[in-house]
Amino acid sequence: MGTQPIQFIDEATARSIVDEAVAFEAIERVFAGMAKGDARNFPVVREAIDYADALYGFKSGIDKSSLTLGVKAGGYWPHNADHGLTNHQSTIILFDPDTGQPTDLVSGNHLTAMRTGGACAVSIRHLARSNARTLGIVGAGHQSAFQLRAAAAQRDFERVVAWNIAPDGLDRLAAVAHELGLEFESVTRDELGQTADVIITITSCNEPLLDASQIRPGTHLACMGTDTAGKQEIDHRILTNARVFTDEPAQAATLGECQHAVAAGALTVDDITAVGGVITGDSPGRATDADITVFDGTGVGLQDLAVARRVVDLAA
Amino acid sequence: MGTQPIQFIDEATARSIVDEAVAFEAIERVFAGMAKGDARNFPVVREAIDYADALYGFKSGIDKSSLTLGVKAGGYWPHNADHGLTNHQSTIILFDPDTGQPTDLVSGNHLTAMRTGGACAVSIRHLARSNARTLGIVGAGHQSAFQLRAAAAQRDFERVVAWNIAPDGLDRLAAVAHELGLEFESVTRDELGQTADVIITITSCNEPLLDASQIRPGTHLACMGTDTAGKQEIDHRILTNARVFTDEPAQAATLGECQHAVAAGALTVDDITAVGGVITGDSPGRATDADITVFDGTGVGLQDLAVARRVVDLAA
Repeated sequence: MGTQPIQFIDEATARSIVDEAVAFEAIERVFAGMAKGDARNFPVVREAIDYADALYGFKSGIDKSSLTLGVKAGGYWPHNADHGLTNHQSTIILFDPDTGQPTDLVSGNHLTAMRTGGACAVSIRHLARSNARTLGIVGAGHQSAFQLRAAAAQRDFERVVAWNIAPDGLDRLAAVAHELGLEFESVTRDELGQTADVIITITSCNEPLLDASQIRPGTHLACMGTDTAGKQEIDHRILTNARVFTDEPAQAATLGECQHAVAAGALTVDDITAVGGVITGDSPGRATDADITVFDGTGVGLQDLAVARRVVDLAA
Repeated sequence: MGTQPIQFIDEATARSIVDEAVAFEAIERVFAGMAKGDARNFPVVREAIDYADALYGFKSGIDKSSLTLGVKAGGYWPHNADHGLTNHQSTIILFDPDTGQPTDLVSGNHLTAMRTGGACAVSIRHLARSNARTLGIVGAGHQSAFQLRAAAAQRDFERVVAWNIAPDGLDRLAAVAHELGLEFESVTRDELGQTADVIITITSCNEPLLDASQIRPGTHLACMGTDTAGKQEIDHRILTNARVFTDEPAQAATLGECQHAVAAGALTVDDITAVGGVITGDSPGRATDADITVFDGTGVGLQDLAVARRVVDLAA
């Protein structure tokens, strides 16, 4: 039996290869591929393993346009940080779609952060007002700095306003903003809603942090934190008054930020537009500068595979 | 971030390490672990990828007693044989359950055949009459020789009787039987039912090959071929008159040989006993020499993980 060699790309190498531009391009292309029907995600497995308090599972799919087939395996190990390891651990394994044999194993911790930032950036590129100048961020965890870096290049932002449940946590975001040449201010949520043109939410909350009265016309919201039943970042009435976009509509309706509006009967899956359709020009995006647009970033396996494929191609 | 090295065990190495005894011991232990609640399979993903006519997916689980966590990824590539490759392609990836980091990648083609043979052998060890002397085999594909080798050591078999839809295909089985010191005879299905004490079915059929009138009291049947909705090897009325065992009752009722009896209302999932309970002594097995026993081998991810774990331990 013939066996092709398997390439292993470790975390340090993956980190050195993938910057915001690489992630952006990979995500934009695969979202378009999903809209065109070239790329499809398979069902997600996510299980509490009843050991180490960990969640473990798989996100997978195929992109026929790039001949990318594979799976991201891993999950959340909440006690890893106690031992100097990242809590979110993932590995992407790519397979040859012509034979079913594995070709590459790519460490996926940095890649997961970059692909999430990439999705947020794609939504800003295609949905935010072109004259957006102030970027708002809700949340200051590990992911927030990746979101800021990814978003910064998409508009001529001048200023970052941010809120976090623990204001001390904003120091890292402030440092990244200054590094990017942006003013930074810690604000209340009311102030954030009244000044930000684009708002990124990136938390693990189970209740709304922003309500409809706080959001101005013309705002683009990228809600990047909700990926599980029960999580929530914004009041579902914000969605009712907005044009709503996502990576994968069926997933948004069940475990994304849209789940609460759908459960309340205020939104149906048909009201949720795949952002890929906006990229390809098949679906309308923002219509006027007064529209509120929301991108519900739930996270799909094809994002991980797309970035891993770029890593492999660039490493060659 | 600390990163442990990942070990890759290729197909030739895996083949050199796993014999029938290794597979038997691993499967018997993990079936017992499933019965005790130490080991659990996660939901199966199996998708037609709309490319190369292939099926692709994942079987996964955790065995806390051996600290084994992982996934078998792969599937069925029907055109591989045209290019000198095995059609069934699979790879097992093991993860450290304490951290979520991958530890080992094990080529799984030989292992899949060995773990299926191991399950069949475990069922014979724990369910067949002790005085069984004639082994019947229905089917003569790639898997059938593995089944014969795995079964042969479980009883003092003297003779193999076999039937295949294409009698020419039996040459390989005959050669293996002779190598094992067993007489071999190609027979009709009526003759097979009337002479075999143990019957292994290992086909990809969609209709019953044996009916109830062909099966004598005291027979043990190991139905190893049905792992998908729609497949069938034996008439469901055989199950109605038998004591029915399996690897995973819920899976047997939906995609194993039991699916047809369950659909007909002749069997419920509560009538299906996990063979692990027989191994641990918590469930009754065969009660008398006149019982007909059926093992519905559906195939679970923990079998793959258990054998891969043994490969890794023995390779060390």
